[in-house]
Amino acid sequence: MILAIDLGGTKIASAVFSRDGKVLQQQNRSLDGRGGKAVGRLVTEAVAEALASGGITAIGIAVPGISRHQTGTIWAPNIAGWDDYPLLEEVRAVAQDIPVYIESDRSCYILGEAWQGNAQGCNDAIYLAVGTGIGAGILTGGRLLHGAADIGGAIGWMALDRPFQASYTDCGCFESMASGEGIAKVAAAAVAEDEHYSGVLKKEGLRAQDVFSAYGHNDRIAIDVITQCISLWGMAAANLISLFNPVRIIFGGGVFGPAVALIPLIAKEAARWAQPVSMGLVKLEASALGNSAGLYGAACLAMKSSHYVQ
Amino acid sequence: MILAIDLGGTKIASAVFSRDGKVLQQQNRSLDGRGGKAVGRLVTEAVAEALASGGITAIGIAVPGISRHQTGTIWAPNIAGWDDYPLLEEVRAVAQDIPVYIESDRSCYILGEAWQGNAQGCNDAIYLAVGTGIGAGILTGGRLLHGAADIGGAIGWMALDRPFQASYTDCGCFESMASGEGIAKVAAAAVAEDEHYSGVLKKEGLRAQDVFSAYGHNDRIAIDVITQCISLWGMAAANLISLFNPVRIIFGGGVFGPAVALIPLIAKEAARWAQPVSMGLVKLEASALGNSAGLYGAACLAMKSSHYVQ
Repeated sequence: MILAIDLGGTKIASAVFSRDGKVLQQQNRSLDGRGGKAVGRLVTEAVAEALASGGITAIGIAVPGISRHQTGTIWAPNIAGWDDYPLLEEVRAVAQDIPVYIESDRSCYILGEAWQGNAQGCNDAIYLAVGTGIGAGILTGGRLLHGAADIGGAIGWMALDRPFQASYTDCGCFESMASGEGIAKVAAAAVAEDEHYSGVLKKEGLRAQDVFSAYGHNDRIAIDVITQCISLWGMAAANLISLFNPVRIIFGGGVFGPAVALIPLIAKEAARWAQPVSMGLVKLEASALGNSAGLYGAACLAMKSSHYVQ
Repeated sequence: MILAIDLGGTKIASAVFSRDGKVLQQQNRSLDGRGGKAVGRLVTEAVAEALASGGITAIGIAVPGISRHQTGTIWAPNIAGWDDYPLLEEVRAVAQDIPVYIESDRSCYILGEAWQGNAQGCNDAIYLAVGTGIGAGILTGGRLLHGAADIGGAIGWMALDRPFQASYTDCGCFESMASGEGIAKVAAAAVAEDEHYSGVLKKEGLRAQDVFSAYGHNDRIAIDVITQCISLWGMAAANLISLFNPVRIIFGGGVFGPAVALIPLIAKEAARWAQPVSMGLVKLEASALGNSAGLYGAACLAMKSSHYVQ
């Protein structure tokens, strides 16, 4: 059996999987605002508890940030004190002879979908995770793309529109306009600039889900903002298609969610921009595993025998 | 010794390499307008002649198009009748027991630079080939990126500017503006639209090199066109940096060439757009091998022992 752990910014999900992909048991632990070593202890507790029952042969962990393979340390921006946290060393101390593998959440998402989701059996497939931010988990030739310092897949920084705007500086062009946070910001700015607007988006603390809700009711600012997102998601998908020639692009994260219904429009936009032969070979689909993609991916990761993992 | 062959649209270059990268002998054959099987015969003649001297242990071939690994066939748009040409089978018939490997020219360029050029020892490096068209050869995690149907790296299709223009339809947004052919077209269109312009670019048969020459003499249309190219090359480099986290981006092809002097400006533009940590880890450089990159890459390819090749 495999132990999979999906560490998020607010909780730890853990699950024991059979090798054929069945979840045998699952448990959640809340971080309750913990940071630093206290989060490390919560992970090692989850590991120790699962190992106590016996039968675990490998451990896979998804982390909300970057897994540095040379050092076994983690950068996780939403966990205090996790700039370079020695998670691998800590978990190995508990796991002893049982092998431990750690990858970024976005890499685990595509592993999960390739193992048990909408990219099953695909060697070339990409998970586009659109939540508060935007990232991509990339399988190419059956292997995860890491990059020289394990920070590949930072697609939120993709340049998609000229000229450069100051608003792109903090998180990149694509993310500043088409992430959950970006959607809320762009909509709030449009409301502030439009004297004649008196619709539902004129409120404090606007969130992306408000914009999707208003889009469903034909609010004109929501239509403008979401139409721009469809264009940007389509262009980003097109760029992935032209560069990677994948057979699947999986849309997931909190925004997909409500944006899943837009995938046919995104595909239509992508088809205008992408290399046409590659476009004809790819399917754009929603995540099949939803919030469980990280857990499934961590389990797949742990089965080192899988050809999806280097 | 290794036999390397670089098949281009107008000639075949062949060279015998020692395993440590020395060119022992080299020869060119002109295609003289040949197409179809006549080009295949020219390749097999080159192979047979080199084998007759003895001592060749592997053969690598760079082709101006796509090498389909499942079938061993080649798509080469500039050679008549090479939509799906059985080159591997034909060369194997001559080579007998000596192994034969075939890759696209752009993949060979990055292999060559990683072996003997400006990306030596790099596992994550990209060759951006800007000539008549634009393509990228991509090494990620020490392996060539192929994609599901061997057409990855089609970066000429990269979407970099909204909204979509009809001029992007035939060859993609990036290529339509920033390839050699794109530069000439954009400049010719600007001249045609500008009644007051009477500079050196007002002529029939404008080519990219005319635009670079005029840029050197402060021609205002040339400055506009090349400034736009710097922006687009910078954005494209930024997108490669954010997605692949490489340590080198090598600029080559006919346009680099005259655009080599612009690489510092391109790097400055890339730095505005790219994921900042990845940006700090990459060097943008000109090709060290120039027109020989394909030959060096074909030789590297043939040394299957190299970890650069799957």
